[in-house]
Amino acid sequence: MRRVADAVDAQFDLLLAVPDDPRAALFNAMRHAAIGGGKRLRPLLVTATSKLFNVEENSALKAATALEALHVYSLVHDDLPCMDDDDLRRGKPTTHVAFGEAEAVLAGDALHALAFDLLADEHTHPDPFVRAEMVSCLAKAAGPSGMAGGQMMDLAAETSTFDLSTVTRLQQLKTGALIAACVEVGAILGRVPIEGRTGLRGYAHDLGLAFQIADDILDVEGDAELAGKALHKDEKAGKQTFLTLMGLGRAKEQANMLVDQAKSHLNGYGEEANLLRAIAEYTVERDR
Amino acid sequence: MRRVADAVDAQFDLLLAVPDDPRAALFNAMRHAAIGGGKRLRPLLVTATSKLFNVEENSALKAATALEALHVYSLVHDDLPCMDDDDLRRGKPTTHVAFGEAEAVLAGDALHALAFDLLADEHTHPDPFVRAEMVSCLAKAAGPSGMAGGQMMDLAAETSTFDLSTVTRLQQLKTGALIAACVEVGAILGRVPIEGRTGLRGYAHDLGLAFQIADDILDVEGDAELAGKALHKDEKAGKQTFLTLMGLGRAKEQANMLVDQAKSHLNGYGEEANLLRAIAEYTVERDR
Repeated sequence: MRRVADAVDAQFDLLLAVPDDPRAALFNAMRHAAIGGGKRLRPLLVTATSKLFNVEENSALKAATALEALHVYSLVHDDLPCMDDDDLRRGKPTTHVAFGEAEAVLAGDALHALAFDLLADEHTHPDPFVRAEMVSCLAKAAGPSGMAGGQMMDLAAETSTFDLSTVTRLQQLKTGALIAACVEVGAILGRVPIEGRTGLRGYAHDLGLAFQIADDILDVEGDAELAGKALHKDEKAGKQTFLTLMGLGRAKEQANMLVDQAKSHLNGYGEEANLLRAIAEYTVERDR
Repeated sequence: MRRVADAVDAQFDLLLAVPDDPRAALFNAMRHAAIGGGKRLRPLLVTATSKLFNVEENSALKAATALEALHVYSLVHDDLPCMDDDDLRRGKPTTHVAFGEAEAVLAGDALHALAFDLLADEHTHPDPFVRAEMVSCLAKAAGPSGMAGGQMMDLAAETSTFDLSTVTRLQQLKTGALIAACVEVGAILGRVPIEGRTGLRGYAHDLGLAFQIADDILDVEGDAELAGKALHKDEKAGKQTFLTLMGLGRAKEQANMLVDQAKSHLNGYGEEANLLRAIAEYTVERDR
């Protein structure tokens, strides 16, 4: 995990060299958001999945950095005053607090574009079919039928009372879609045809849900300092979450069940999938 | 122009069918921003360029819609209270005025992703090399070394005094990069190798600058109702523009000279480039 995190940091450091012109503040804001911090779960999912198929490390790492850039952009925009209005992220002031609101909007936008720039770059993968498929996969995960749609539902959750199936759908779009895209991009890099991705898709689906239930539990039970962000937020916003709908006990059971189920989807793989199995276990253990 | 505008509207109408779920507000905000309005100069540049190379109309139109989606996203974000704080755009309330600030950030984000989704879609072009190259071109035009970088410089212009070369660079990034990408995408669709794009690149470069000088003139001399947006903004913000740096007379001369120069880059083409020539002339005549 540390190795992937360091490698992603090094990629961002190279990509975001600060120019000596009036764009410097933009690059500094992008660096603030992207470098140093976070568990880098998404890059790890890309590299761990692509390892199953002996993908060249450089390709996996560049695609992993793209997926993290997309994730970081979403954090920067979600933290904005008009969205979740958060001051702390990954143990640091959020980008708009450190650099200003306009700079944060732009830094997010620029990281969004950077993600696609990286995926479409011939240095990431020599086969244009692989590149176009990765772009297509990420664009769908990011757009109105993915992450942006999920964030819209999350805003609506403050004024509506959602049932369990709506909260599940919300989280599948808001977090699940990008987590699934990480595994999918790993498979695309490995040129796995769609019909060969069923197990990995099942794994990603269950992992995404387990991750979100664990996040809801963390919001109630976690240590804000370890988490590096404000907690008890859903409670304050009066939102329905997996916890309010299931209760703490059942939510924990459900998360553990989903982790087992995620691992069972990997039964077609041998030891080479142990890292993916460990990631699934980690999602319900992190930051406690 | 009208025909392309209608076709782009029809594309957006299909792509942005409003779902019967809590994402409806997001789709409505995207439709508000994207449908009905604007001169559709960027889609027209894509289709007019691709016509030189007998590109299939469906491909050109889908790519044109992608470029317009990217442009519309940039307008939505530029209009935000923390950026230019505009209430009127294309004769309508801006997206954050009509739908709320969070919704406007998300609608912009979702249109940003949609642009790449469209370019990477196999229904846009069957050749993955063409798709990946279009994505790469647009991502660079949108990112920190393109539009987002230009918008950052524009924010800095409120507190710095830029000279003519810095203002030129600002505008090349902020507006020029996307205009150039439209022409480039037309050439990519036509499978024109890079060495065959010199004339078109020269055309796009000069057109982009002429467009921006005309925009600065419009900001001072234009009719706000015809323009459909607030004018005299640069003046109020105390920004250096082509006008403040050159004076009205020289700015007009310069714009006309650039239009002639843009057209001269098309000398290698015959009548089939007349639409591109007409577009160049139109850029300095619009909205007066």
